[in-house]
Amino acid sequence: MKIMHYTEAEPKHFDTDTVKGVTGRVVIGKADGAKNFCMRIFELSSGGYSPMHSHEWEHEIIIHAGKGEILCEGEWVPVTRGYTVFIPGNEEHQIRNAGDEPLVFACVIPAGPPEL
Amino acid sequence: MKIMHYTEAEPKHFDTDTVKGVTGRVVIGKADGAKNFCMRIFELSSGGYSPMHSHEWEHEIIIHAGKGEILCEGEWVPVTRGYTVFIPGNEEHQIRNAGDEPLVFACVIPAGPPEL
Repeated sequence: MKIMHYTEAEPKHFDTDTVKGVTGRVVIGKADGAKNFCMRIFELSSGGYSPMHSHEWEHEIIIHAGKGEILCEGEWVPVTRGYTVFIPGNEEHQIRNAGDEPLVFACVIPAGPPEL
Repeated sequence: MKIMHYTEAEPKHFDTDTVKGVTGRVVIGKADGAKNFCMRIFELSSGGYSPMHSHEWEHEIIIHAGKGEILCEGEWVPVTRGYTVFIPGNEEHQIRNAGDEPLVFACVIPAGPPEL
């Protein structure tokens, strides 16, 4: 059993032309013996956003803290703490912080794709 | 894409000799087209606990709210908001509320076992 606060995991920062103010952490993955799926925790700083993209694998998300918006079929849908989001494979998506505090969410993906 | 607050999912209540004060909800599962893994959200009322048990499949957990304790190799380990827990398959486990507020956590399991 592995028990830790998510901030104990090594952070990886993303800031490019297409992604801004994103910190990602693999909290449960292959290195832990998790063979079927992988949990990552993302923090988006105020003004931050993930890239708009799509890929074959799905996302299962729970919003942990903050206020965000998710691009869903061309519309920005507001989400806050306690919202859950299922993004099927091959569906275009993007998440952005819509508040002043960090937006924090857990995002689970199947084993296979890069963990982060 | 499916976006909702977890409390919108149908609750199932558990109260028996071995489990107390537990409400479970499947927020993302087979009915949504999630083929690889399933996200459930559990609320344990103050004094509540999940059953002590083990099974072949793993759990990937994030503590969403409240204060809890997880039985890990005979020791009760405290967890609060932001803790993540990996319980490998076949490892005995139990979770209990250790505070006055509901303990809320997301628990992801692979597809195959009963979703709730």
